[in-house]
Amino acid sequence: MTFRAPVPEYQFLLNHIIGYSEISATERFSEASDDVVTAILTEAGKFCDEVMAPLNRGGDLQPAYLENGVLRTSPGYAEGWQAISEGGWIGMSAAEDFGGMGLPMTLTTAVNEMMSGACLSLQLAPLMSQGQIEALEHHASDTLKELYLPKLISGEWSGTMNLTEPQAGSDVGALSSKAEPLDDGTYAISGQKIYISWGDNDFTQNVCHLVLARLPDAVPGTKGISLFLVPKFLPDAEGNPGKANSLKVVSLEHKMGLHGSPTCVMQYDGAIGWMVGKPGGGLAAMFTMMNNARLGVGGQGVGVAGAAYQKALAYALERKQGKSASGTIVDHADVRRMLMEMKADLFAARAILLACSQAIDMQTATGAQDWAARAAFLTPIAKAFGTETGMRVSETGVQVHGGMGFIEETGAAQFYRDVRVTAIYEGTNGIQAMDLVGRKMMDGGDMAHRLIDEIEEQAERARTTHPNMAEAVWQACESLREATEWLTAQGNMDERFAGAVPYLHAFARVLGGHYHLAAAMADVGGPREKLARFYINRMLPEHAALLAHAQAGADGARALTLDELADG
Amino acid sequence: MTFRAPVPEYQFLLNHIIGYSEISATERFSEASDDVVTAILTEAGKFCDEVMAPLNRGGDLQPAYLENGVLRTSPGYAEGWQAISEGGWIGMSAAEDFGGMGLPMTLTTAVNEMMSGACLSLQLAPLMSQGQIEALEHHASDTLKELYLPKLISGEWSGTMNLTEPQAGSDVGALSSKAEPLDDGTYAISGQKIYISWGDNDFTQNVCHLVLARLPDAVPGTKGISLFLVPKFLPDAEGNPGKANSLKVVSLEHKMGLHGSPTCVMQYDGAIGWMVGKPGGGLAAMFTMMNNARLGVGGQGVGVAGAAYQKALAYALERKQGKSASGTIVDHADVRRMLMEMKADLFAARAILLACSQAIDMQTATGAQDWAARAAFLTPIAKAFGTETGMRVSETGVQVHGGMGFIEETGAAQFYRDVRVTAIYEGTNGIQAMDLVGRKMMDGGDMAHRLIDEIEEQAERARTTHPNMAEAVWQACESLREATEWLTAQGNMDERFAGAVPYLHAFARVLGGHYHLAAAMADVGGPREKLARFYINRMLPEHAALLAHAQAGADGARALTLDELADG
Repeated sequence: MTFRAPVPEYQFLLNHIIGYSEISATERFSEASDDVVTAILTEAGKFCDEVMAPLNRGGDLQPAYLENGVLRTSPGYAEGWQAISEGGWIGMSAAEDFGGMGLPMTLTTAVNEMMSGACLSLQLAPLMSQGQIEALEHHASDTLKELYLPKLISGEWSGTMNLTEPQAGSDVGALSSKAEPLDDGTYAISGQKIYISWGDNDFTQNVCHLVLARLPDAVPGTKGISLFLVPKFLPDAEGNPGKANSLKVVSLEHKMGLHGSPTCVMQYDGAIGWMVGKPGGGLAAMFTMMNNARLGVGGQGVGVAGAAYQKALAYALERKQGKSASGTIVDHADVRRMLMEMKADLFAARAILLACSQAIDMQTATGAQDWAARAAFLTPIAKAFGTETGMRVSETGVQVHGGMGFIEETGAAQFYRDVRVTAIYEGTNGIQAMDLVGRKMMDGGDMAHRLIDEIEEQAERARTTHPNMAEAVWQACESLREATEWLTAQGNMDERFAGAVPYLHAFARVLGGHYHLAAAMADVGGPREKLARFYINRMLPEHAALLAHAQAGADGARALTLDELADG
Repeated sequence: MTFRAPVPEYQFLLNHIIGYSEISATERFSEASDDVVTAILTEAGKFCDEVMAPLNRGGDLQPAYLENGVLRTSPGYAEGWQAISEGGWIGMSAAEDFGGMGLPMTLTTAVNEMMSGACLSLQLAPLMSQGQIEALEHHASDTLKELYLPKLISGEWSGTMNLTEPQAGSDVGALSSKAEPLDDGTYAISGQKIYISWGDNDFTQNVCHLVLARLPDAVPGTKGISLFLVPKFLPDAEGNPGKANSLKVVSLEHKMGLHGSPTCVMQYDGAIGWMVGKPGGGLAAMFTMMNNARLGVGGQGVGVAGAAYQKALAYALERKQGKSASGTIVDHADVRRMLMEMKADLFAARAILLACSQAIDMQTATGAQDWAARAAFLTPIAKAFGTETGMRVSETGVQVHGGMGFIEETGAAQFYRDVRVTAIYEGTNGIQAMDLVGRKMMDGGDMAHRLIDEIEEQAERARTTHPNMAEAVWQACESLREATEWLTAQGNMDERFAGAVPYLHAFARVLGGHYHLAAAMADVGGPREKLARFYINRMLPEHAALLAHAQAGADGARALTLDELADG
């Protein structure tokens, strides 16, 4: 089967679930009308089907490799990148001043998700550039913007993100790469960075690294970190790639999946860099890029889930077995259950992803703090639940295939392997959950309560047409409110952190119920109402166990000593 | 880190949870005293640590391959098999008449689980032989027994199971391999079989295939299937491997994991075979082997879960990050949560596995129908929950490792890939669940109700010392009882099948609570009580959502048409 981009599903979500018209009603995004949206989604869908999906298996079988220090990418990836660049897909949401299309992030999210489903390894490359573009737009000097943004947006150059060091993973504050000021206002960057996705390639003229490092006089911890733009080739007077910079790819990681995407160990030996933002403001600047990337990674999870669902359904429709109506396994009740679970979670995760994107667009368009807070709150949920859905759906996709699911030629296994990293990179899902119950609820959980109010308001409205479903969502939301109150009452963060992951998942489960209910109201008697009923009756109840776990506190989680943990 | 076999954990489970003394009190197993158990577990643990665990990664990196039609196994596997054979591990539970040790299945289960954790790919080879030994013991003629059993038990020869054909997977009745009677009482077997684990090797003198095939006059469906023993080399007059039989390995599958275990496509072209059991009795005879193998596969899931837990804990203890007490990630609340979840499920899955084994032993020792029914009921739960636990724990194990979890050198990823197949082979977990709610509850759910009564009886006893935990288990069990009554009232099997998987998992969750409660009662104030509290407060509540799903019926699961499933 071929991959088929879910264009009609996106149109439904934009029009009936997340209220896209609110975005296109703003002056900032007034050109992104429904017609434009449909045209872009359709074009992107075609592009995914025809250009990207055919590259997916080749990247798995023939990973990127180093040849005498030169990185060679998987077959067809260079042409794939070229096509992505020419299609204008990298700079969809970038400012028009530098060649971007200035379109809403909501559209970029949809397109990125489709591309992730088609070919995750390759899609990660433009995603990295998009994050860098956004970071430079917000924090770089005009000189840097004018030189770099047009090249990054056109795809002539590409971007990467360099945070992690061997001793500094989730604890970014422990990093030790150095930046020595030079006389001409540039800096000499030295240190080793690991897990650098697309740290190099053989298809762009330059690779631009955003690198976190410390100035000589920097304070310890996160406040002593600054951000530097460090290109592979130093631009010459005309802005073209000139002399090679003092940096190199030391090695590539051998990974469980995502083989087409080179994960590099980078070495900087006095490489020339330019500061982006202020001294000590590196982490704040990098967070712009990371928030973008976190949403993008959530979309990767959803994209793979969508592709895994399609493949599983196609297999179930074609695999002959038994004496049922169609003679294929799709008639088996348990296979139907699996497909329905996959489809119901896919819808929920997509709706959350788009709701987060919409908040970002409304923030961009209106500058309102409200929208910013909503985007900030939804980002860790979109990331963690999107990638969790990627794992669950691809796992079930393997199961639908039976024995064939374990055989690599089928492709179901590749989804399962590839998507596993999305729950880890750009902040593990544990880090996302801690961000949610910590930083994002420091104000007493204001945004959580606002969302809870919205969910209950819609449930009240739904009581006339869908009394049972409305009541179930309302009750679940009440439990979520109680848990939220309990969590925000905990001054000791350890109490929150011990239940952070179950709390995040419960919030996602309830939000999923909310969007499914909206879909049921928009499609009375139709398939979306039936899918909503399946989700609300059979999957939403999970929230209760998750919330019990979320409120169980830290003592129980820490009850065993290290020796006792090791016993058995 | 090195693998460490969980000998003390097994001793606790045998002595305090499943009542091993009941087994050793029987005449049949009177020699398997506590001292013998400890000696065997200790020896097996040492063997796993020193011989098997070092082979695990090599099998992943250098899979078995075909060289001009000859199968070459992974480095060290031949020596590993030799050591397994010499240790007497293959025939632990085989009859002493033919060289077995006649030990309880409970012990074999423990040893198999440890070996699975140490090296799953290699452990699958003796597991296949064990299944064949049991099938021959029960169904073969004396002549066949005398010739084959000593060789299989000693490990000079090995055994395989040949069910699946390209068009006949879970629907075994669709198989079409043929068996033509020959004048001398043997049969000429022809057909193709797929997914044959360890279908060949380069370390045993002979490979004995149990093959399902149809006689010329066989009725269609499962009742027309007979079982045949088809050796790679035909035994000569002295019983030594003689002329090559007309069978061959056509190809090996490229799998997501379990690379050290060759998964073969086998071709039989008039190969000479001997009938095992009666004409048309093939499936019944094969079921002996399959039930054994299903329990064994459940043990594989638990074994990998155990190894994945150990590796994750070791990493958490050594990975420096942050400013906590130990300076390592084990101090993070979310890492503790993950480790506790892993450990709590590991305990639950192990207890269920051993309870099933105990029932098999009591059936063997007493011949009581009661024990047989209990073993039959617990087998699909042990298989599906054991392998589900393998998946969940190895997934969390990857997560504990953060970025390192996705890197193959770490080994966490291999557990995740390898264990995935255990939820599929020997009957997918969906098939297990359908077996549970179908065949195993045809009598109205008698055994389900008996287990439910036992769980509630223990909960009543526990009220004095552990009132909260006892109440939680009791309540969960009441919900399970209601769901069981609902299920067994459904005459239309489709209604049962649509909720079969959630029902099975809910049953396992409640059984897990039951065994955790027993552990709490046996270890008041100790770590097992604390672990039980964690499980009962935070994981047992999942039963409610699962049971809601289990009773939601088939209509909702089938609500979408095939076209509607394909939309989006």
